[in-house]
Amino acid sequence: MPSTAHWSYFSYFLAHLLISSGAATTLQAQSAESKSNQPNIVIIFCDDLGYGDLGCFGHPTIQTPHLDRMAAEGMKLTQFYSASPVCTPSRAALMTGRLPIRSGMCSNTKRVLYPDSAGGIPESEVLLPEALKEAGYATGCFGKWHLGHLPQFLPTNNGFDEYFGIPYSNDMDRAADSPRGRAAFNAPEVEYWNNPILRGTKEIERPSHQPTITKRYTEEAIRFIKENEENPFFVYLPHSMPHIPLFRSEDFAGKSRRGLYGDVIEELDWSVGQILQTLREQNLDHKTLVFFTSDNGPWLTHGLQGGSAGLLRDGKGSTWEGGMREPCIAWWPGTIPAGTSTAELGSTMDLYVTSINLAGGKVPDDRPVDGYDLTKVIKENSKSPREVMYYYRGQRLMAIRKGPWKAHFMTQASYGQREPVVEETPVLYHLEYDPSEVHNVAEQHPEVIAELTELAEQHKSGVEVVPSQLELRLGKTE
Amino acid sequence: MPSTAHWSYFSYFLAHLLISSGAATTLQAQSAESKSNQPNIVIIFCDDLGYGDLGCFGHPTIQTPHLDRMAAEGMKLTQFYSASPVCTPSRAALMTGRLPIRSGMCSNTKRVLYPDSAGGIPESEVLLPEALKEAGYATGCFGKWHLGHLPQFLPTNNGFDEYFGIPYSNDMDRAADSPRGRAAFNAPEVEYWNNPILRGTKEIERPSHQPTITKRYTEEAIRFIKENEENPFFVYLPHSMPHIPLFRSEDFAGKSRRGLYGDVIEELDWSVGQILQTLREQNLDHKTLVFFTSDNGPWLTHGLQGGSAGLLRDGKGSTWEGGMREPCIAWWPGTIPAGTSTAELGSTMDLYVTSINLAGGKVPDDRPVDGYDLTKVIKENSKSPREVMYYYRGQRLMAIRKGPWKAHFMTQASYGQREPVVEETPVLYHLEYDPSEVHNVAEQHPEVIAELTELAEQHKSGVEVVPSQLELRLGKTE
Repeated sequence: MPSTAHWSYFSYFLAHLLISSGAATTLQAQSAESKSNQPNIVIIFCDDLGYGDLGCFGHPTIQTPHLDRMAAEGMKLTQFYSASPVCTPSRAALMTGRLPIRSGMCSNTKRVLYPDSAGGIPESEVLLPEALKEAGYATGCFGKWHLGHLPQFLPTNNGFDEYFGIPYSNDMDRAADSPRGRAAFNAPEVEYWNNPILRGTKEIERPSHQPTITKRYTEEAIRFIKENEENPFFVYLPHSMPHIPLFRSEDFAGKSRRGLYGDVIEELDWSVGQILQTLREQNLDHKTLVFFTSDNGPWLTHGLQGGSAGLLRDGKGSTWEGGMREPCIAWWPGTIPAGTSTAELGSTMDLYVTSINLAGGKVPDDRPVDGYDLTKVIKENSKSPREVMYYYRGQRLMAIRKGPWKAHFMTQASYGQREPVVEETPVLYHLEYDPSEVHNVAEQHPEVIAELTELAEQHKSGVEVVPSQLELRLGKTE
Repeated sequence: MPSTAHWSYFSYFLAHLLISSGAATTLQAQSAESKSNQPNIVIIFCDDLGYGDLGCFGHPTIQTPHLDRMAAEGMKLTQFYSASPVCTPSRAALMTGRLPIRSGMCSNTKRVLYPDSAGGIPESEVLLPEALKEAGYATGCFGKWHLGHLPQFLPTNNGFDEYFGIPYSNDMDRAADSPRGRAAFNAPEVEYWNNPILRGTKEIERPSHQPTITKRYTEEAIRFIKENEENPFFVYLPHSMPHIPLFRSEDFAGKSRRGLYGDVIEELDWSVGQILQTLREQNLDHKTLVFFTSDNGPWLTHGLQGGSAGLLRDGKGSTWEGGMREPCIAWWPGTIPAGTSTAELGSTMDLYVTSINLAGGKVPDDRPVDGYDLTKVIKENSKSPREVMYYYRGQRLMAIRKGPWKAHFMTQASYGQREPVVEETPVLYHLEYDPSEVHNVAEQHPEVIAELTELAEQHKSGVEVVPSQLELRLGKTE
């Protein structure tokens, strides 16, 4: 029957077409698949943001609609930690997946790196951008680095294709004629500081114009995302804010009910909104994992210029919860279940391992790595592989958390107390019952004290202490 | 032309049809309109819930997915207050729209009503259910009353069609042979207490079986909603929990990472989920306004049996923020903008005025009413008509808030300090910069102190102090 013949020919033609185009499609799919299997990764990292500073983490007068939406579309992590209560060690841990004591990026005498420091992140460390670059990622860093400002330590010599930002804290390099002491922070002016902005390793602006810093970091990140929409990319966006001195652009001046600090957070919130909106508009939202968190807790000794740790005790500088527990939001529409919240443990060091694994890269296996893979936690809201948190202050192990229990072997106020107090009996809290660390239950749980003390000894015996990079100073020989 | 004639006739017929049916439709519409213009009103009122006890208000280990969803579908109010830091006066204010000092429902010597009290809510007060009943509402109260347990003071003699619940606090009526002091609260058993459950004014159970109390209040409320789906209704659901002794049903035993207190909150969260789901299933969600809040802050002196005020100072019993600022969520799908948050001021007394106005009822005009209409705040996220908050402890005006400023004229710890300290210079905080009341700025702002002091004097001179109902005792003559 002609119709059959016709059909026959047609079906042959169709089959041929399907097969030939199918083959091409398969190849394309493989390539697309392998690319689409490599999610873009964005880490937005604030500076001195408190656990209680966002609307979705309970602040009453700081409005953060974009972060609230990010949480509503993603997952809130409510027991998430940085690896140090101060800047340089915390960032070293994020970038290496390792406790700062292993890389020498901490010290008992110098909290962080300063403009007269000669040290920085050792070349032997495998940084997150290096591992991701190896896996085929385009890598950009837009913001505060603080892992060494000499050329060999800068981002573009450590795995980043691009860098734009202030290389250390925005309060460093005080201008000689600035008001003394706190006065400069209470009414900050651009000319009170003299820190530079670098592009790559080149200084392009000095003093940095800080009122536009949040905006410019954001614009640089967005440009980079747009330029790399065909590649898998890694954007590291370590904001200089809300570290003092507090600056925000004209658009946010007087916007917040929380005053200057609130203006600054609301501009950071705007920035997050811009990043996520760019991802949506470029159709990248379903293949981009975004983490939002901070390096350490709020700088409480700066009064209203500092943030709030919410219900947590103390802040920046201390190993009380307020010093190291951070607000954290993970966002990846279609992959991370929307509107969820987990109290499973996580750490910035886990972002290192999680990111490299998701990228199909290689986590170094020739050295101790302290991070865990949180992929299942964020994708399936399942149990975390992390059970233990070590709380270091400089090179001292002050406290350990295992499960809900935290034992403080030493305690020290965030600022103003020179040496730690060694507790004869460690102070013990059940952090899930008592997140504010108010009710010491050491007496009722000697078995927990014993277990955590044993764990501390085991841990310390397994850590090789290397010379501190923070104690090296320009113009000094060791 | 025939077609014209036809058309003419047809259009006449049509017009007639439209007019006649139109008239009917208009009448029907008016009736339906007037009913649909009367939203159902549900007030879920917890007991001693802290500002920081919900996931969406920042608690790290209490999971409240239903309340979080309620907030995501509605509006969070982050500067919302009860009118007293303890139970009876707070509830009197919610039910009357008036400061408790105006109704005699507070005292400097008795915090609340007790089982040996002879007083209660005066008949002269116009209670919220009375005003709503007058406007055609079916009214049900399921939970803790605490405005007097003698018959004349009970809900069904004060505007409610139905009542089911424990008439006062669940820790009252301790059984003679219960463990002494705190021991009974640390490991609570049903038989340690001897308080009753009433239906209407009739005792139907004694001792109340508290482990099922949250569940049974919820079931009663759901039954009432289903029975009244054709009427406008008012459901007042004042939970007995999380007031100590803490009880939860078997389904919630050991569920929360926060221990017993967390189990209790997670059952309350479940309850909220059940109520909202019932409203959705009965197609009532678009015509029902639900408020969720609490009577006062957490009972901190009870340690882990008490909740958390989050970043706020102190708790139940005190006029620091933790004593009187409450988590509040307003929900009315299609009317309240979803996923919003407001820091505009509100008070439980405003729920009185708002509810009556939305119901088309009559707010009493023959007496001072202290509530404001928050309709525009919740519908349009606009400015609140409330600018001032009075903080009473008993009959003493301890503090005033106007705008962001709060002046404490007297201070007193929540418990353990017999008399207030009169501050020579009032202690002043900018609550929107400093919600934790840490930075006293009295010295910098004498003009604000002067304004608030003047306001206090004005207010006090306008308040007629009536005899306290809380000081009347059974078997005693005045």
